Amino acid sequence: MPREFNVAVAGATGAVGIEMIQTLERRNFPVKNLRLLASARSAGKKLTYKGTDITIEELKHDSFKGIDIALFSAGADISKEYVKSVVDAGAVMIDNSSAFRMNDDVPLVVPEVNPEDIKWNKGVIANPNCTTIIMLVAVTPLHRAKKLKRLIASTYQAASGAGAEGMEELLSQTRQALNNEVLTPKFFAHQIAFSLIPHIDVFLEGDYTKEELKMVYESRKMLHCPELKISCTSVRVPIMRAHSESLNMEFVEDITPAEVREILKNAPGVKLVDDIANKRYPMPIEATGQGDVLVGRIRQDVSRDDRKGIDMFICGDQILKGAALNAVQIAELL
Amino acid sequence: MPREFNVAVAGATGAVGIEMIQTLERRNFPVKNLRLLASARSAGKKLTYKGTDITIEELKHDSFKGIDIALFSAGADISKEYVKSVVDAGAVMIDNSSAFRMNDDVPLVVPEVNPEDIKWNKGVIANPNCTTIIMLVAVTPLHRAKKLKRLIASTYQAASGAGAEGMEELLSQTRQALNNEVLTPKFFAHQIAFSLIPHIDVFLEGDYTKEELKMVYESRKMLHCPELKISCTSVRVPIMRAHSESLNMEFVEDITPAEVREILKNAPGVKLVDDIANKRYPMPIEATGQGDVLVGRIRQDVSRDDRKGIDMFICGDQILKGAALNAVQIAELL
Repeated sequence: MPREFNVAVAGATGAVGIEMIQTLERRNFPVKNLRLLASARSAGKKLTYKGTDITIEELKHDSFKGIDIALFSAGADISKEYVKSVVDAGAVMIDNSSAFRMNDDVPLVVPEVNPEDIKWNKGVIANPNCTTIIMLVAVTPLHRAKKLKRLIASTYQAASGAGAEGMEELLSQTRQALNNEVLTPKFFAHQIAFSLIPHIDVFLEGDYTKEELKMVYESRKMLHCPELKISCTSVRVPIMRAHSESLNMEFVEDITPAEVREILKNAPGVKLVDDIANKRYPMPIEATGQGDVLVGRIRQDVSRDDRKGIDMFICGDQILKGAALNAVQIAELL
Repeated sequence: MPREFNVAVAGATGAVGIEMIQTLERRNFPVKNLRLLASARSAGKKLTYKGTDITIEELKHDSFKGIDIALFSAGADISKEYVKSVVDAGAVMIDNSSAFRMNDDVPLVVPEVNPEDIKWNKGVIANPNCTTIIMLVAVTPLHRAKKLKRLIASTYQAASGAGAEGMEELLSQTRQALNNEVLTPKFFAHQIAFSLIPHIDVFLEGDYTKEELKMVYESRKMLHCPELKISCTSVRVPIMRAHSESLNMEFVEDITPAEVREILKNAPGVKLVDDIANKRYPMPIEATGQGDVLVGRIRQDVSRDDRKGIDMFICGDQILKGAALNAVQIAELL
């Protein structure tokens, strides 16, 4: 590949698409030409990249001529519809949707977790689900050191996980609630302002949601541990754009909170925020806008008699590390 | 005791105190006379009980002459200061604070869980912490049937748990956030509007918070299971007054989701809300104002190979069942 790349962003006007463009700029990615693609509705509008206005083009099957890297964040259906056109044009698709994540011939990659899997791509690399990325950035270094056996996760997921419309609905509904107006859920199934919804994505086997099972299956694939035991409860909370997760972990080997801190102190993509004496712990307001995953509230699991259990609380920017940043980091590995 | 009772409410102007008065009225508790007590600052103000204005009196050591039952919700320090005066006056103190919960000579009671413990009271009965009450109402019937071995809880606790000031701060901060004003945390340690705080009450042994360890020790005391394994992560979320909890449970005996539903269908204080086909599951907006604890998202724990694990999600009104209603139910048992 050349030292500079022709990059396309499909879904350029979405919450993640906009952040992808800003991340390319912020990280000074070697972009030769940037092509912004979206639906016909957005075509003709302009977005700024490095001080230059770029006109958004309508996404079409012939949009990828000369493109080296195509960042997709326009939903699974769009990714499936255009993947052949992207690959046939000789570009690599880095796909933020769930379309190909579990395909055996598509690597699913978090650069801090399994960068080596990029090598066997056949033109498509998948970006994992946001909660899985955030969890694995924090947990993988512990797994490498002490071998993770079982993980129980409860999530606190921001409105941004449902895209720009989700964030807008949280804001507009909150205004309605403060004004004692009748609330009108449109995008979310139920009221999200001053409430929560323990249901994200569709229900699948065992009455788990697809969102919950992504955590199970994507983690197993990326860690190459088909036997890893994971359960998750995914909950939407009235927060704008950083996801939090309460994790209870069991390891094969003994592990102490001091060891967790030592391991995570220099782990890539991790920022330890675990100074309870000064009331410092991960919070969405601090994670927002940060590329790092914040880790804190590290405790030896008091529900076990041995030293194999750890509780901790983590936060990560869902749009950045949970989506756009991870996709651009994959592009950098290429 | 007489068929009608002289009742005092100490902390009458707080969020829980006001709900205690309304709960006495709503449940038609046999009140002969109602005495409302608060700090000097509130003395002279009036509150309505069954259509009659009652003047709030200043809480003093001689406030309990002739009182049969004194409901306290004015903080642990006030409870400790006045307990002797209450008991010496011949009244029974039902205390919502943490002051006496772990005292060996004070029963800690949830009427649906351990009503028999009321019998050995020596003038003081403690109301458990809100998250413990809500959890035990849902879990005790399962424990009686299949013997609970280990429980991992992650909580989503409403602002009301910090009293009326907490609720007011959530509202005022949310207004500030929507108007792009500078946020001013006063009552909570950090911003709560559109964010969360994984820290409730002070930090204690093992870097767990007091709030988290209450779940451990209060549950063991009420279930008379000193060996019960519990870990908890307590998180304040931007929700007004219903607490939610994500529970992962391990039982000694096999248990299936169908059995959980069968056991909980007729359990006192429990309302099954577990109809995912119709997007029905526990949510704070539905739990608010309800005496029952809502239980749903019941699943066989996918992280286990056996049938001893259950995941579920529960919600309960923190001020009602989590505090005022439970206290009045204790009074009814008397």
